Amino acid sequence: MRFDCVISGGLCVTASDTFRADIGILDEKIAAIGTHLSGERTIDATGKYVMPGAVDTHTHLEMPFGGTVSKDDFETGTIAAAYGGTTSIVDFCIQGKGQSLQDALDAWRAKAEGKAVLDYGFHIAITDMTGSVLDEMQTMIDAGCPSFKVFMVYDFRVSDTVLMQALIQARDHGGLVCVHAENNDAVTYLINKHLSEGKTDPRYHALSRPPLVEGEATGRACKLAQITGGPLFVVHLTCESALQEVVRARANGASVMAETCPQYLLLSDANYDEPDFGGAKYVMSPPLRPRENQEPLWKGLASNDLVSVATDHCPFDFNGQKDMGRDNFAKIPNGAPGIEPRLALMHEFGVNAGRFDINRLVAVCATNPAKAFGMYPQKGALAIGADADIVVFDPELKVTLSTATLHENVDYTPYEGVEVTGFPVATLSRGEVVCMNGRLEAKPGRGRFIKRGKPRFV
Amino acid sequence: MRFDCVISGGLCVTASDTFRADIGILDEKIAAIGTHLSGERTIDATGKYVMPGAVDTHTHLEMPFGGTVSKDDFETGTIAAAYGGTTSIVDFCIQGKGQSLQDALDAWRAKAEGKAVLDYGFHIAITDMTGSVLDEMQTMIDAGCPSFKVFMVYDFRVSDTVLMQALIQARDHGGLVCVHAENNDAVTYLINKHLSEGKTDPRYHALSRPPLVEGEATGRACKLAQITGGPLFVVHLTCESALQEVVRARANGASVMAETCPQYLLLSDANYDEPDFGGAKYVMSPPLRPRENQEPLWKGLASNDLVSVATDHCPFDFNGQKDMGRDNFAKIPNGAPGIEPRLALMHEFGVNAGRFDINRLVAVCATNPAKAFGMYPQKGALAIGADADIVVFDPELKVTLSTATLHENVDYTPYEGVEVTGFPVATLSRGEVVCMNGRLEAKPGRGRFIKRGKPRFV
Amino acid sequence: MRFDCVISGGLCVTASDTFRADIGILDEKIAAIGTHLSGERTIDATGKYVMPGAVDTHTHLEMPFGGTVSKDDFETGTIAAAYGGTTSIVDFCIQGKGQSLQDALDAWRAKAEGKAVLDYGFHIAITDMTGSVLDEMQTMIDAGCPSFKVFMVYDFRVSDTVLMQALIQARDHGGLVCVHAENNDAVTYLINKHLSEGKTDPRYHALSRPPLVEGEATGRACKLAQITGGPLFVVHLTCESALQEVVRARANGASVMAETCPQYLLLSDANYDEPDFGGAKYVMSPPLRPRENQEPLWKGLASNDLVSVATDHCPFDFNGQKDMGRDNFAKIPNGAPGIEPRLALMHEFGVNAGRFDINRLVAVCATNPAKAFGMYPQKGALAIGADADIVVFDPELKVTLSTATLHENVDYTPYEGVEVTGFPVATLSRGEVVCMNGRLEAKPGRGRFIKRGKPRFV
Amino acid sequence: MRFDCVISGGLCVTASDTFRADIGILDEKIAAIGTHLSGERTIDATGKYVMPGAVDTHTHLEMPFGGTVSKDDFETGTIAAAYGGTTSIVDFCIQGKGQSLQDALDAWRAKAEGKAVLDYGFHIAITDMTGSVLDEMQTMIDAGCPSFKVFMVYDFRVSDTVLMQALIQARDHGGLVCVHAENNDAVTYLINKHLSEGKTDPRYHALSRPPLVEGEATGRACKLAQITGGPLFVVHLTCESALQEVVRARANGASVMAETCPQYLLLSDANYDEPDFGGAKYVMSPPLRPRENQEPLWKGLASNDLVSVATDHCPFDFNGQKDMGRDNFAKIPNGAPGIEPRLALMHEFGVNAGRFDINRLVAVCATNPAKAFGMYPQKGALAIGADADIVVFDPELKVTLSTATLHENVDYTPYEGVEVTGFPVATLSRGEVVCMNGRLEAKPGRGRFIKRGKPRFV
Repeated sequence: MRFDCVISGGLCVTASDTFRADIGILDEKIAAIGTHLSGERTIDATGKYVMPGAVDTHTHLEMPFGGTVSKDDFETGTIAAAYGGTTSIVDFCIQGKGQSLQDALDAWRAKAEGKAVLDYGFHIAITDMTGSVLDEMQTMIDAGCPSFKVFMVYDFRVSDTVLMQALIQARDHGGLVCVHAENNDAVTYLINKHLSEGKTDPRYHALSRPPLVEGEATGRACKLAQITGGPLFVVHLTCESALQEVVRARANGASVMAETCPQYLLLSDANYDEPDFGGAKYVMSPPLRPRENQEPLWKGLASNDLVSVATDHCPFDFNGQKDMGRDNFAKIPNGAPGIEPRLALMHEFGVNAGRFDINRLVAVCATNPAKAFGMYPQKGALAIGADADIVVFDPELKVTLSTATLHENVDYTPYEGVEVTGFPVATLSRGEVVCMNGRLEAKPGRGRFIKRGKPRFV
Repeated sequence: MRFDCVISGGLCVTASDTFRADIGILDEKIAAIGTHLSGERTIDATGKYVMPGAVDTHTHLEMPFGGTVSKDDFETGTIAAAYGGTTSIVDFCIQGKGQSLQDALDAWRAKAEGKAVLDYGFHIAITDMTGSVLDEMQTMIDAGCPSFKVFMVYDFRVSDTVLMQALIQARDHGGLVCVHAENNDAVTYLINKHLSEGKTDPRYHALSRPPLVEGEATGRACKLAQITGGPLFVVHLTCESALQEVVRARANGASVMAETCPQYLLLSDANYDEPDFGGAKYVMSPPLRPRENQEPLWKGLASNDLVSVATDHCPFDFNGQKDMGRDNFAKIPNGAPGIEPRLALMHEFGVNAGRFDINRLVAVCATNPAKAFGMYPQKGALAIGADADIVVFDPELKVTLSTATLHENVDYTPYEGVEVTGFPVATLSRGEVVCMNGRLEAKPGRGRFIKRGKPRFV
Repeated sequence: MRFDCVISGGLCVTASDTFRADIGILDEKIAAIGTHLSGERTIDATGKYVMPGAVDTHTHLEMPFGGTVSKDDFETGTIAAAYGGTTSIVDFCIQGKGQSLQDALDAWRAKAEGKAVLDYGFHIAITDMTGSVLDEMQTMIDAGCPSFKVFMVYDFRVSDTVLMQALIQARDHGGLVCVHAENNDAVTYLINKHLSEGKTDPRYHALSRPPLVEGEATGRACKLAQITGGPLFVVHLTCESALQEVVRARANGASVMAETCPQYLLLSDANYDEPDFGGAKYVMSPPLRPRENQEPLWKGLASNDLVSVATDHCPFDFNGQKDMGRDNFAKIPNGAPGIEPRLALMHEFGVNAGRFDINRLVAVCATNPAKAFGMYPQKGALAIGADADIVVFDPELKVTLSTATLHENVDYTPYEGVEVTGFPVATLSRGEVVCMNGRLEAKPGRGRFIKRGKPRFV
Repeated sequence: MRFDCVISGGLCVTASDTFRADIGILDEKIAAIGTHLSGERTIDATGKYVMPGAVDTHTHLEMPFGGTVSKDDFETGTIAAAYGGTTSIVDFCIQGKGQSLQDALDAWRAKAEGKAVLDYGFHIAITDMTGSVLDEMQTMIDAGCPSFKVFMVYDFRVSDTVLMQALIQARDHGGLVCVHAENNDAVTYLINKHLSEGKTDPRYHALSRPPLVEGEATGRACKLAQITGGPLFVVHLTCESALQEVVRARANGASVMAETCPQYLLLSDANYDEPDFGGAKYVMSPPLRPRENQEPLWKGLASNDLVSVATDHCPFDFNGQKDMGRDNFAKIPNGAPGIEPRLALMHEFGVNAGRFDINRLVAVCATNPAKAFGMYPQKGALAIGADADIVVFDPELKVTLSTATLHENVDYTPYEGVEVTGFPVATLSRGEVVCMNGRLEAKPGRGRFIKRGKPRFV
């Protein structure tokens, strides 16, 4: 059989297995795993890893926030993602006040259409659970968006009642509820306290949202999941306090999963002391944590207490956006970039550092998020019949991360100057080379909406 | 020296020590501990324990609830308490909608005045934190009521913000915040769910308020205490889920204490299956729990994870009051009697059963609650200068608990037929014999308001 | 390409992935995974699972014990294993008093040669660490036997010093130390105590080796592993007490792994009450445990606190062997059969019961033990280049387990009458069909010694 | 009544209560607690604490060790103890090879007779459990020595079997087994390893006995206590690893208690880096630990996971004794002084530092050890009928600890230069002033053997 494309001679890596083989691609799918395969195009992967393309289930492209908009749109954002070895994203479609979920989804799909170079799905962020919105959840599930996001903090937060309603709908119709877990009253109290004391520096952003604020809300969400029997996914978990809640809930048999992000594994609240308002670069919610939280998170990733790593990519320029909060940390747009270096960072500080093996890297960056969010086995698998979303990763390539060389459309990276050994050299989406050896080959707009199915407990 | 009264020859028991001695009482106080003491009146305590009078910091006398009023008033209630070896109570003064705390306190003091045979204090239950109420907290502390109660459930519940405000006021002015911890949204959801399914039996009261509902709110309150640095006292803790939260908070250095009640140690949700609506007798909030929660509570009491035992005495007649909810468990007045048998039950199932020693009995029933609520060393101590509030307890006396013989003004007891070995035979308040050998000697109205001082972490 | 054999149309299951594909086998290896493959022989696997052959790393074939010999030899034992879906075993080669490890290995290889229908490896059980035996460990590692077994109990137990020496050798030369963890002094004391009291029934076997006896030794072994930095594998872990030790050691970063066995997940000490000396069937060490230990073990398997399931297959006839201890439980040969039904039992009570998914079944029965014991990727993988050790498993096939239908050479099964849905229908070893649809196709003696490489931490 | 002596106006402190009173002493006993008492001698305690004399249940006076003898004998040692507020000690009587316990006790009593200024008891250290020694345990219990010490390390260590035998004897006859818990094989291996690598510095003493070595043995001893139902007391517990074992055993209902010592709460392994062989001053077993172990021990003391604080006072001069090991840490006599400053250190770093209150100080330094070791209420209580062993403690007195001012007969103190606020100003033993305001009033030889009764679980 002659394939459209063959990736030859690489070391294939799945979430459990490692073996040398050629991959044959036909009609956008993985059609063969074997030896001596031949195709129209051959990519020599000798000495490289051949892995399922990474899946990033937490991005905010072209997202309005506090009067500005995150800098990467679906074109620049997915291009940067592709350079980093990511082949699928799930972005957050955010319901407006009074808006139907369908209208919100339509609006968000319009942002992506014609722009994305990778396939994309949407979580539906429910901010206004009124009228028929509860019923619309099932419609969204049927439309391929089975995951919902609710916030326990911010103006558009939901009550415990609404969180329970969402959990029950998800339970009954094959959905999953994602939660941003911070205690709103405590955050509000601490922000007001700090501001009233004239404490406006970025570091007070972190001190206004201490770990217990997240631990509390995480524990509450986990227990409401247990009470209702609804499936819960805790996004961007940052600290030991919250992790303990997830561990306990899982031990008690609750259907609870959680992700963390590279920034919480690698950066700390010491970054807020960067001079000249530099701490603003790290203003995100939840904030960076005291360093002693990092090792528990790494262990959680290794042991599957944490099932995946996503980026929460939400980039704002330091100049022109972050500085909106120069006099008041509460006005700094929340978020930081990271969509591109995730896989390389996790390889460097996870695999190279001996915290877990290469199979576990595939699990947390690709297979688990694909399973948890209903894209498996279409995405996240190096398997016959799966979309040929593949990353060729050179474990020997030394790269120094820098704004200058990364493709994110933002004027800084939190990882400036970080050196890694190991970086993607080719990224394929449905069999098409999106970028290889630093060159973009694909056209904006080729990315398609991913109609996702039933989430799975991992 | 000649004393007003001498209790001679008993085995004196404090929270740490046990020794044979006479107690000499002068001017309402303990004036001497020694031998060969003589006084106007001598009470022979040979073969008996002589202990600090028990302190019950959780009572609801003459309390309006759902259109009715708890059956014991300050006269009948304190008489029953005295028969059981209790010498001080702290009752809950409940702020009305729009009422000032001072007005509420005045109203509650009026209920007690002229009626109580024992000394009494008041917790101030804040139900409407508006206007100047926050400032009034300090006034109440100065007035000798340094403990406040807030509810996280019911219509008059407080928000997390108000709970934090209360904690901060308590922290800054020497107060203590008591919390009834149940998640309101979850309880409401479950009640409505059960009622809508036609499930109106008393057992659905328990199923509408499962352990996790309490565990959640307890964890939330503990974490808000840690965030604010405010002192917290968790009342009527019933289950392992909640206990774990308290243990964790204390291990983290939070100023958190908790009590449990005899009913949670001795009864279980199996009681709700009592036929002929009998389960209604046990309808209280939080409800009785599955039996496997009992042993962790006992261990918590032994290890000081739980610092005290109170009764939550809130009696409603089975006939005429409890039956208001015959068609709807949500209309059953919440509460049960227990002010009289507490000390005997804890002696029987704590000391006689080998779960802790007699000193620990004094600690959890007298010394610890007195310390925690700012009455120590006036109350709760067998010490020079302390109020001569003393119970003479016969460890060999066999008593079968029964509505017929108990003095509570209510038509049932949850402990009907329970046999205990060990019961109070004399109770003195400020040196005056209130009751002895089954006879009441004191006059209603002799009890005084206890002006309490700064609560202490136990 | 034309393959020697093609397994077509099945649902391929690895430890992480599930996908429909054909498997092409050439020269004993898996050569292709794809579609439309053709070969000399085709096995239609439509509607079936196609999984890596199961790996049983704990068997005792033809093993001398207390004056008798376990009933299955390498022929009958591997045939029974094959019928159950197992394709590789690692048996225990036991050093005799004063014997060199090489001599022991030669003796054990001779037992297998010409008999086994499956590939087999050997752990080297060190019972006499004298003279050059410590140095010989490296020789054994080079010879493909990198795993060593030591006993903390029995006459041939090792001291803590020897255990540390073994751990250090393993650490330095790429080996792994397996430990049978029970406290010898406590077991001896309890056996003597029971016998001296005339308590000779099989149930006293269990009461002489209570869970704490295993918990103690497991904790000791784990801590010695941490102290030396040596890699440890705890075999046949049975109870929560021991599991807690493993969990703690792993959380502390120790290189500790553990397995359990189906009997500890499914049977309990209640089996010892079987009448007519029937309890003797379940006399094994460690013994069956109180039922409350089962669920923690299942959770440990799901969460990877326990990495694998092996059988500890060590069959003795009830009549003629077990009855040697009719008057004295200490004389009952220790061991029970189980080599055949492992995969089906784990599928039934793990997967069908919802405790974990089908991928986890492959992980704990095949991939993990192959990795942990240095056979991966030769064994335990459905991957290009791996030995074509494959089981075709029909998830719908209903089977009632029974001595009459199982192929183990022993007069009883602990699982008599147990009904399972799902059973192997074909087992291939290196591409050769060993048995299919109940018929044996392979010849004794076709099995080969597995020269194992470096164990891997899972 | 006229008393022999009155301590007037002090603040009396017991393990649970605090109150202002006079103490009247008659015939060596506490005869009255009251006001306006008068006696032959009056000690004005206004502004001072009046507490039960401290009880030190872990001393080694005039003890042979490695060819030398600890510097303090029963005269100098008890004088130093008295200056520090201690009124009773329990020293270790150590059985010689082949010696009967009675002979050992006779020898040790002879050392104390005529010398001690304080009352003293003896633990019997069993080093050679041969012949009738097991039976002799009951004789020792009857003779007032109900506590036995066994070592799990050193040449004179006991096997697990002997430890169990001792536990069973203690269980059956009202005794208590104290254990020095370190894993002998691991310690021996590490010592030999370090010495063979030429690592002879004092710091290698600590590295040869790491925390896990103690954690292992502590866990083993606790589990053997559970298996046998025997009562265990873990002496000189130093680290979190061992503490976790004790906590778990107590939670499981085992009769296990543990003590720690000031050096483990206040010093750390950093002390071993003191230059010029200075680290030798801190060579003791178990050794000082990494600093992160301190806070868990403090919390354990506060929560009663640790029931008492003893000194393990075993002084050797730096010059002339410690330097025996200048070339080999294994030859440094093990032990350090501390009998005098214990109460002041615990007051300073426990009470003044806010880790627990003054009542808890009394509990851990006096009441609990007296109860645990069968001296209560004769010792450890401020109660009628108790021995008038009393310390008057000035909470405002500032003292700088120094070899120059301490009364220990040794050329250094580990606490040189440490400043404390609060120090004993008078110490009475059976009503006699032993020392007051820095002056010794009592004669050597006045101390008596304490015939102890049944140990009590605390």
